[in-house]
Amino acid sequence: LGCHISMQTVTLIPGDGIGPEISSAVMKIFEAAKAPIQWEERNVTAIKGPGGRWMIPPDAKESMDRNKIGLKGPLKTPIAAGHPSMNLLLRKTFDLYANVRPCVSIEGYKTPYTDVNLVTIRENTEGEYSGIEHVIVDGVVQSIKLITEQASQRIAEYAFEYARNNQRASVTAVHKANIMRMSDGLFLRKCREAAEKHRDVKFTEMYLDTVCLNMVQDPTQFDVLVMPNLYGDILSDLCAGLIGGLGVTPSGNIGANGVAIFESVHGTAPDIAGKDMANPTALLLSAVMMLRHMGLHNYAKNIEKACFDTIRDKKVLTKDLGGESKCSDFTEAICQRVRDMD
Amino acid sequence: LGCHISMQTVTLIPGDGIGPEISSAVMKIFEAAKAPIQWEERNVTAIKGPGGRWMIPPDAKESMDRNKIGLKGPLKTPIAAGHPSMNLLLRKTFDLYANVRPCVSIEGYKTPYTDVNLVTIRENTEGEYSGIEHVIVDGVVQSIKLITEQASQRIAEYAFEYARNNQRASVTAVHKANIMRMSDGLFLRKCREAAEKHRDVKFTEMYLDTVCLNMVQDPTQFDVLVMPNLYGDILSDLCAGLIGGLGVTPSGNIGANGVAIFESVHGTAPDIAGKDMANPTALLLSAVMMLRHMGLHNYAKNIEKACFDTIRDKKVLTKDLGGESKCSDFTEAICQRVRDMD
Ligand SMILES: CC(C)[C@H](C(=O)O)[C@@H](O)C(=O)O
Ligand SMILES: CC(C)[C@H](C(=O)O)[C@@H](O)C(=O)O
Repeated sequence: LGCHISMQTVTLIPGDGIGPEISSAVMKIFEAAKAPIQWEERNVTAIKGPGGRWMIPPDAKESMDRNKIGLKGPLKTPIAAGHPSMNLLLRKTFDLYANVRPCVSIEGYKTPYTDVNLVTIRENTEGEYSGIEHVIVDGVVQSIKLITEQASQRIAEYAFEYARNNQRASVTAVHKANIMRMSDGLFLRKCREAAEKHRDVKFTEMYLDTVCLNMVQDPTQFDVLVMPNLYGDILSDLCAGLIGGLGVTPSGNIGANGVAIFESVHGTAPDIAGKDMANPTALLLSAVMMLRHMGLHNYAKNIEKACFDTIRDKKVLTKDLGGESKCSDFTEAICQRVRDMD
Repeated sequence: LGCHISMQTVTLIPGDGIGPEISSAVMKIFEAAKAPIQWEERNVTAIKGPGGRWMIPPDAKESMDRNKIGLKGPLKTPIAAGHPSMNLLLRKTFDLYANVRPCVSIEGYKTPYTDVNLVTIRENTEGEYSGIEHVIVDGVVQSIKLITEQASQRIAEYAFEYARNNQRASVTAVHKANIMRMSDGLFLRKCREAAEKHRDVKFTEMYLDTVCLNMVQDPTQFDVLVMPNLYGDILSDLCAGLIGGLGVTPSGNIGANGVAIFESVHGTAPDIAGKDMANPTALLLSAVMMLRHMGLHNYAKNIEKACFDTIRDKKVLTKDLGGESKCSDFTEAICQRVRDMD
């Protein structure tokens, strides 16, 4: 109908607490930017499937299977015994094997660090998250960390591909192969093999403890970091802290064949939910990652710029960003800038 | 012979690289302070015992068994295949179950943080360091994390005793019991039980990832932190980074019945070894921890003050501390201050 760019449909999981507010902020900004995205809203509260296994509702699964791409707000932590973390269930259901978190210093939002510009890439499916644990004898418990050649190779390859596609110069493998010689050793070997295949990207390896030490002393020395599941859980939060916390940090969970879910990793903030006080930045920047993933680079660039300019400008900011504005005003300020770019 | 304070003998393991220089710096300062310590030097390069098992030399073992207290410089990482990390071997040989690292901001030594004043207490004997690993099938490796009731209880009790004895208000248990429900769950349960017994100390629990995030955003919120082995490896280095790195961070490995080895945790710095350039601060502050452990609080206070005053004064500093002085000059500056306290 006179429209040249074809719309793509994305599954939107608004989430709990402030989730709906920040989701609608993102939708408004996307509309202002005329981003060719159509949203299909789904609820993912886990249900008990046949055999008593927890699963995400069939219509959410079907939507994701069809659209391949999702955007997700925060979900409350389930309190029912045996109820799985929704985040883990989503990663598992769609085999989202890479968790990607760019941590870039935001101009105008002061933290003890400047010029941070790194990306953590976390293996998202195995390692310490295997869920296999036993009581050996009374008072003695073992948890099994599972590292496979296949998953290690897949994430190592992904890290180097990511570096290449995003003009990043180096990849650092983070490990404790001095202690876990076989498991982290296997992970490290797969990283070295991937490095051999990608000679254009510099490769280094570093112990996790050394990375943590160096990270807080000078994060600018790091570029792309790739690591097993638990180390990624830790380092991605640490790095988010360096640039201002989970309220400004985007995240993407990437699977095979283009499947991906982008999400803000902060909480549901029930105390301010519904009060028009939430900060939509993390979800918005996750949506920007999503646009890049879909090849919609210009929309991504414009929205990102409008967001960063609004923060740098300091005139209209939500409370957690140091201002006094409402979520809706902050959103409108970004919309205005996006419209002005036309 | 007219001497009122009885001398106590301590096993001194000077270590490799800069180890001998910084050890002799510590000895000089102790002499200037008239600290009632007699040193018994021992070398701990591992040897192969009966059955091909690596062990520390019998005369070093005998010395430690007799003196109970050791001070240790950095040791080179063994490169022979199958040769164990000396640090791990020492922890094991003397069952040094608690690794204690106070991280306190040093006035005059600028980092992005001020007023850090916390202590990490790391379980030092089990967890991810069990050394048990298998290949399940080709390309699938498991590492076993072992958590026992006994070791968890022991370290939890230690943390609360430490807090009480050192006038610290709170203990935070660091865990991932949301993921490793049984193993970290057991650890956490033991911490909760210890908390019940020590109602005078505030108790909180926090996920490791949340601790990392909060730590880099505001470390002043933390006091005593207690955690399983690997988490302690990571957090203790991270926290050292906050106050200036391993060159200024003391460390103690504590066992049962008063047995303990205090050590600097930085490397051997072979590039500057023998050049009178090394910074003895980490080893000196470890020796100060040792004095406190032995109940020699006044000597500890004086030496610590002399060291901190010298750093704050900025006139005589080694290169890594931002100055241009030799190790021997820095040492002499501290000695002078200690003598002036008489
Ligand atoms: C919610 C929790 C299960 C999760 C994790 O531990 O992976 C979270 O910390 C994350 O990083 O997504
Ligand atoms: C040397 C190494 C085995 C050790 C560890 O991983 O525990 C070190 O990092 C430490 O913290 O003492």
